[in-house]
Amino acid sequence: MPLRRMVLLEPLVTKQERATRTRDALIKSAAREFDEHGYALAKLSAISSGAGVSPGALHFHFENKAAVAAAVEIDASTTLRRTARIVYHQRSNALQNLADTTHALARLLREDVVVRAGFRLSCSQLCGTDLNLRQEWQSCVQQRLAEAADEGLLASDIGGQQDLARTIVAATIGLEALCRDNGEWLSPGTVTGLWRTLLPMLAAPGALAALTPAGSPGMAERAYTPVA
Amino acid sequence: MPLRRMVLLEPLVTKQERATRTRDALIKSAAREFDEHGYALAKLSAISSGAGVSPGALHFHFENKAAVAAAVEIDASTTLRRTARIVYHQRSNALQNLADTTHALARLLREDVVVRAGFRLSCSQLCGTDLNLRQEWQSCVQQRLAEAADEGLLASDIGGQQDLARTIVAATIGLEALCRDNGEWLSPGTVTGLWRTLLPMLAAPGALAALTPAGSPGMAERAYTPVA
Repeated sequence: MPLRRMVLLEPLVTKQERATRTRDALIKSAAREFDEHGYALAKLSAISSGAGVSPGALHFHFENKAAVAAAVEIDASTTLRRTARIVYHQRSNALQNLADTTHALARLLREDVVVRAGFRLSCSQLCGTDLNLRQEWQSCVQQRLAEAADEGLLASDIGGQQDLARTIVAATIGLEALCRDNGEWLSPGTVTGLWRTLLPMLAAPGALAALTPAGSPGMAERAYTPVA
Repeated sequence: MPLRRMVLLEPLVTKQERATRTRDALIKSAAREFDEHGYALAKLSAISSGAGVSPGALHFHFENKAAVAAAVEIDASTTLRRTARIVYHQRSNALQNLADTTHALARLLREDVVVRAGFRLSCSQLCGTDLNLRQEWQSCVQQRLAEAADEGLLASDIGGQQDLARTIVAATIGLEALCRDNGEWLSPGTVTGLWRTLLPMLAAPGALAALTPAGSPGMAERAYTPVA
């Protein structure tokens, strides 16, 4: 790029970058506020001061509390989908992939306040987005079970795939709900215990030996992509 | 009792009865308000008007919102414990009892607003009671599994009882959490599907044939004791 054009573009890029940084800081501060106080009691003044900006700067980016919450939800959804995609593209087989995805999502819920707040907001029907992260998770579980059936990984004597999918969704959503009282429920150890219980039931005897309830080594780290 | 003594006692009994009725109406109205709006946004004025009494009558019974919430929690806990006790005393074996208890509690959560609101309040740590209904449920599951082991009902190749108990608690708490979006998650059909999935994994092959994932016939009805 010729030097002259670069110089002309520079102030614009810097301004855009600054706006993006402010928006990201506001989303992160909002997530902390929603996570701590819930949507209803969250205060816009706390969100702007938590991001180190003026109330005016908040209103430049977001019309009202619902708009901030929608942005948190959308960011959380983006991170969750990206993580699920990364884990999926490193898959060994569909059942291991299901366990790996659960471990990766548990880590995001533990460590990324935007994902945690966004997941809860998405379930509370208070915001205006069409996102329903629980339903997306349910679709993901159903898809992996169907793939596992195609790959011949499922035990022959297990019941219907719908019952199985619901049991897995209920158990994993239960870990998230229980975690609000006690973080141990989303620890790697508890998620591993869940799969140590479920995999012997799900997997064909020949497939079981190759499955790792603790998740494929290093997978959670490779898939960990928090919102900056 | 001589006629004269009856006449003297009557006004006092009537007054006490009226006070009890008012208190019960306030608890039920508060449960509806907490169920719909959550603790933070629930309004004392809506609670008193919902019970058909004056704000003064509410304050005669309860000092503040936390005191009303504590009363809802305590009533919910009483109903849940009584129900679990009734189911326990009609038990056939420990595994069937676990399934039966889940069905009875699911019915209470579906149909009794005081139980539903109390269960959620108890988990939100906003109130001042020492109750933790999720922890009580976890103890109940652990106890039934230990009894099932004593009764020789558990499959020999299943993993540790702690993993099993956590999986069952997570799955059942997950049903309650998911139910907030969609009531189907606590329907008899979904609870039956859960046990249709879990019982073949838990039970020794010889014990399985005698177990009913849908719950012992008529048990949920016999155990249904909503707060009046």
